[in-house]
Amino acid sequence: MTVRVGVIGTGMIGTDHIRRLTRSLSNVDVVAVTDVDMDRARQVAAGAGGVAVLATGKDLIDSDAVDAVVVTSWGPTHEEYVLASIAAGKPVFCEKPLATTRAACERILDAETAAGRRLVMVGFMRRYDASYRDLRAVIASGAIGAPLLVHCAHRNPTVPPSYSSDMAINDTSVHEIDIVRWLLDEEIAAVRVLTPRRNSRAAGGLTDPLVLLMELAGGALVDVEVSVNIGYGYDIRCEVVGEGGTAALADNPGVIVRSGGRFGGAVPVDWRQRFVRAYDGELQDWLDAVAAGTTTGPSAWDGYAATVVAETGLSALRTGERVAVSLGSKPALYESGLAVAS
Amino acid sequence: MTVRVGVIGTGMIGTDHIRRLTRSLSNVDVVAVTDVDMDRARQVAAGAGGVAVLATGKDLIDSDAVDAVVVTSWGPTHEEYVLASIAAGKPVFCEKPLATTRAACERILDAETAAGRRLVMVGFMRRYDASYRDLRAVIASGAIGAPLLVHCAHRNPTVPPSYSSDMAINDTSVHEIDIVRWLLDEEIAAVRVLTPRRNSRAAGGLTDPLVLLMELAGGALVDVEVSVNIGYGYDIRCEVVGEGGTAALADNPGVIVRSGGRFGGAVPVDWRQRFVRAYDGELQDWLDAVAAGTTTGPSAWDGYAATVVAETGLSALRTGERVAVSLGSKPALYESGLAVAS
Amino acid sequence: MTVRVGVIGTGMIGTDHIRRLTRSLSNVDVVAVTDVDMDRARQVAAGAGGVAVLATGKDLIDSDAVDAVVVTSWGPTHEEYVLASIAAGKPVFCEKPLATTRAACERILDAETAAGRRLVMVGFMRRYDASYRDLRAVIASGAIGAPLLVHCAHRNPTVPPSYSSDMAINDTSVHEIDIVRWLLDEEIAAVRVLTPRRNSRAAGGLTDPLVLLMELAGGALVDVEVSVNIGYGYDIRCEVVGEGGTAALADNPGVIVRSGGRFGGAVPVDWRQRFVRAYDGELQDWLDAVAAGTTTGPSAWDGYAATVVAETGLSALRTGERVAVSLGSKPALYESGLAVAS
Amino acid sequence: MTVRVGVIGTGMIGTDHIRRLTRSLSNVDVVAVTDVDMDRARQVAAGAGGVAVLATGKDLIDSDAVDAVVVTSWGPTHEEYVLASIAAGKPVFCEKPLATTRAACERILDAETAAGRRLVMVGFMRRYDASYRDLRAVIASGAIGAPLLVHCAHRNPTVPPSYSSDMAINDTSVHEIDIVRWLLDEEIAAVRVLTPRRNSRAAGGLTDPLVLLMELAGGALVDVEVSVNIGYGYDIRCEVVGEGGTAALADNPGVIVRSGGRFGGAVPVDWRQRFVRAYDGELQDWLDAVAAGTTTGPSAWDGYAATVVAETGLSALRTGERVAVSLGSKPALYESGLAVAS
Repeated sequence: MTVRVGVIGTGMIGTDHIRRLTRSLSNVDVVAVTDVDMDRARQVAAGAGGVAVLATGKDLIDSDAVDAVVVTSWGPTHEEYVLASIAAGKPVFCEKPLATTRAACERILDAETAAGRRLVMVGFMRRYDASYRDLRAVIASGAIGAPLLVHCAHRNPTVPPSYSSDMAINDTSVHEIDIVRWLLDEEIAAVRVLTPRRNSRAAGGLTDPLVLLMELAGGALVDVEVSVNIGYGYDIRCEVVGEGGTAALADNPGVIVRSGGRFGGAVPVDWRQRFVRAYDGELQDWLDAVAAGTTTGPSAWDGYAATVVAETGLSALRTGERVAVSLGSKPALYESGLAVAS
Repeated sequence: MTVRVGVIGTGMIGTDHIRRLTRSLSNVDVVAVTDVDMDRARQVAAGAGGVAVLATGKDLIDSDAVDAVVVTSWGPTHEEYVLASIAAGKPVFCEKPLATTRAACERILDAETAAGRRLVMVGFMRRYDASYRDLRAVIASGAIGAPLLVHCAHRNPTVPPSYSSDMAINDTSVHEIDIVRWLLDEEIAAVRVLTPRRNSRAAGGLTDPLVLLMELAGGALVDVEVSVNIGYGYDIRCEVVGEGGTAALADNPGVIVRSGGRFGGAVPVDWRQRFVRAYDGELQDWLDAVAAGTTTGPSAWDGYAATVVAETGLSALRTGERVAVSLGSKPALYESGLAVAS
Repeated sequence: MTVRVGVIGTGMIGTDHIRRLTRSLSNVDVVAVTDVDMDRARQVAAGAGGVAVLATGKDLIDSDAVDAVVVTSWGPTHEEYVLASIAAGKPVFCEKPLATTRAACERILDAETAAGRRLVMVGFMRRYDASYRDLRAVIASGAIGAPLLVHCAHRNPTVPPSYSSDMAINDTSVHEIDIVRWLLDEEIAAVRVLTPRRNSRAAGGLTDPLVLLMELAGGALVDVEVSVNIGYGYDIRCEVVGEGGTAALADNPGVIVRSGGRFGGAVPVDWRQRFVRAYDGELQDWLDAVAAGTTTGPSAWDGYAATVVAETGLSALRTGERVAVSLGSKPALYESGLAVAS
Repeated sequence: MTVRVGVIGTGMIGTDHIRRLTRSLSNVDVVAVTDVDMDRARQVAAGAGGVAVLATGKDLIDSDAVDAVVVTSWGPTHEEYVLASIAAGKPVFCEKPLATTRAACERILDAETAAGRRLVMVGFMRRYDASYRDLRAVIASGAIGAPLLVHCAHRNPTVPPSYSSDMAINDTSVHEIDIVRWLLDEEIAAVRVLTPRRNSRAAGGLTDPLVLLMELAGGALVDVEVSVNIGYGYDIRCEVVGEGGTAALADNPGVIVRSGGRFGGAVPVDWRQRFVRAYDGELQDWLDAVAAGTTTGPSAWDGYAATVVAETGLSALRTGERVAVSLGSKPALYESGLAVAS
């Protein structure tokens, strides 16, 4: 079965997903797009081989030609399109964040719970990265014992001028927030933010680096270094310390060069290079589930939890204090566990 | 444009390519299959969603429903199907070897030259492996200077009872024969085979390990360790030694585990795991070229050269002597260089 | 010149240093030993080839046959012997800790300051480890920019039943306390201790693992994971994150083995194996300085600072709060900087 | 017991050994030196603290003040001094080569055999390198199965103008000749030399790189790449391929740096840096054996075998052919095996 997909939002990530859907993935046709900027939408549609351009997200969601929806619009609009997709009974893939506020996420949880079935998948693509999957498999195998600590680093070579300190939490760290929940299969219970000396390369006012400390429900402790002007490359580190061993993301350089007194390999240039396969994998997994009428990937609950933890993190950043995370109880619809991507 | 592909040969590799074409790649429909074992062909066709089963390779090649042909039948039949595809003016992707004898390869070169355009691509998938491509890029960058030596190892954990000493040359080493031609952009001029003490785990009579020494036209020397009962994993090593540095395929383990007094990572289990991305890449590249009406990948000349060098290697294995490789002059059709996969 | 050394304390570390002084190092004679357990002292003296056994530490320090003193007795006795050595005008190498309380360390600082010259070296051997020295050289070279963060892990496979949670701070972490002061050439300004879920392999009541957070005077932040029942080996990790790069202690396995589906190397078994060269280096450096009449290595101020930070750490462990470190002003005698071991 | 050592030859390596004996090693006094250049000898003696300068090697060997002899003179003079030491019944440490011709080595074997006890140790220091010792231990453990192949590389950044192609065999490769005999505990049975395209950085006429192929008595095959103008550093590689796994010298960089898009570590600058510990270890082991009246390290037979294999290698270099190595039978005195350094 070929899944007929409509894409809402033809900005950078939307365009990238359309390229992926039309050129790399199988059993999918992109049949409609829309964007707040109609010129942009028309341009992208033309580049994708004559895809229909619809006036609004609502039109797209309601179109009989569309089996499933991809939401890659501006974050604050996610709620509207996800709710409309649920109302239309159509599977929806929503780029992170699921929604920008706890209240908005709760409305989505309520709607999906009322619908009685999972229709939403959130774009936490790291769960589809081969190295993270190996890491999770090692933990699950018991080879390192029960996890006690997780050391993470999220390093960007640089960020645009529009990047704010809040984004270090709710845009950058949000990936670690999701991935540690998935790796350890536990919710996050409390958060604290530490702010070391500023990197002189950071734009004025930006808190960079920072350390996000997260306590998991079972007591494991996570530290996340966020450095967004590190210059040397895009570097994602994660080491899980268990009771009897550790497991960590490796460098995977492809080639080792020996020259000029040194040996070594390349660090990824950016997130696109580092996670290109993961983006392919998450969308293909979603398409396969849509075609099969099943459910997969990060759920609305995962999107909700990430938004709530990030909000709590912002509070912790402002106060400098440890702040407890209050998630409420998980609806039965999401009881199958955090980790549906096996 | 969707390329309509017919597949001749539904054995292990054919079935794998059909899965790839129908489930992982884009802009392709598998429209017909055939096999010497018609029951097998029907079974595979059914699994691929109702593909047509044709009686013979000739029928498939001549079918109006087929735009392009994939040949994954038994090696000795390759010549017939490649020649028929050329005669039909259809692009053909032929699994290695292009043909099993020099004479057969020459007939293909003659036919394609007479046709006046390149229609054949040979399945040397390593050229599409990300690490080998990085390695070639490092060489081309000049970072290690002009290549002088190449050290390779081709290690299999085990081989089936049907595996013979000749296959160590013409089935296993043939990958290194092609890849060093591509990495260094030079033909192979002479070959010698060394036979160390046998691995006691090798089946009786099997020459394992062996070392294939190859001299390139420009004087660079290549040594290839072939070990096919090494047990510990599937391990492909390649280090190019230049005038001022070296570059080598790295271990890319995904995850490093520390436990039981050691740190380390996993070695690939088999060639499928190691080269899964390369297989995807080569076929997608071929499909894209077919759709665009252009030419890409390893050519019939590359297939010819590999077969001739392997034949020479068998002679070297038998005699224990250094044997010169005689390729003859390259037709102008293939003059654009060894390496069309940029 | 041969330095005639007397050793006070013939327990495990004392015996090890005597072996080192008599069998591995040059330009030194061990001429006298003493211990609270005279039988033990006699036994060790006999094993060292007939060294004199003196009744008390005071006798040893005052002996005309002794040029310089090594103090390897029980921590609470260090103050007495160091003060006596200063009083006798003799160079003294004191194993860590310099003394077990701030007040005791202050009395040593006062005595040495009054003497007007540095006579005390403290046994922080990591400053003589080749990898740590390379790390410090990389920082000093500017290759990674100004340090902002330091991630450390201090992992022991196991600890004896007598090991207490306090020792995680004042016996284990004290090495990181000293080494980060030396690496970054800055004092520690505040401390906090985090206590994740306990390792089920830890003896009842033991806080294991814990994370020691230290703020340096210039704002850099240090996190130290202390895990003392990790089982898999003795593993000392340290990564310094600068404004434009990072530098970290590497695995230095000697040999990489490929077998059973994996590649990898050995982790050190214990601190002796890991730091054997550093112990040799520090004592030889001390002997060379004694012979030359000069001063080297970690000073009494370094020993004082480590004890004060560790005391502050214990307070942080008890309260769970951030606790400021109050060092007071550094006497001019120690003004040449933290790092006299060039 | 303090061993009183006399050193014959105060050139570069002699001076280095004197520094080692006087400043790094224990239980030794350097009591006499001599050199063909008496001014040089006097200068070195003065720097070593007033050591006696004797007129000839014979005087030194016969001096009652000398317990044991170190021979670091010009290679062609080794025979004379080693024979004189044997005649004097004194232990002698001789830098490689034991002697420059097979005939000279045979005279030493005859003399030592006649003396009825081993007095000669040859300076193959790699046997004392920690990584090579680990490698040998892995092989002996059976972890990789019986060795079948050994891949070596001996890379120098550059060589002086006086360096000749013969030296690539008898001065550079001689280290690999000895170490593979020791690693695999087998004699070398045949040799062949391959000469790839010349490195354009090599001085006119120099054969660089070359590949030395050695067959061991049991059939294992060794390939040694010798590159002496590789520029990037001093790099010694060795991988032993067994029936079920491999073991290889690792990179041991101390520190890994991430900067400028890459991660990596330093390669050793030269052989001194790479093997400094091994030189210390071999001489200390010799001194300890002399003090104990026992025997250790590479024997005269090892020195003889290395010289014979190197001579055979020169013949192979000249002829381009495989040349068998003819060692003759090993006298009972050396029967305890190749590897006395446990």
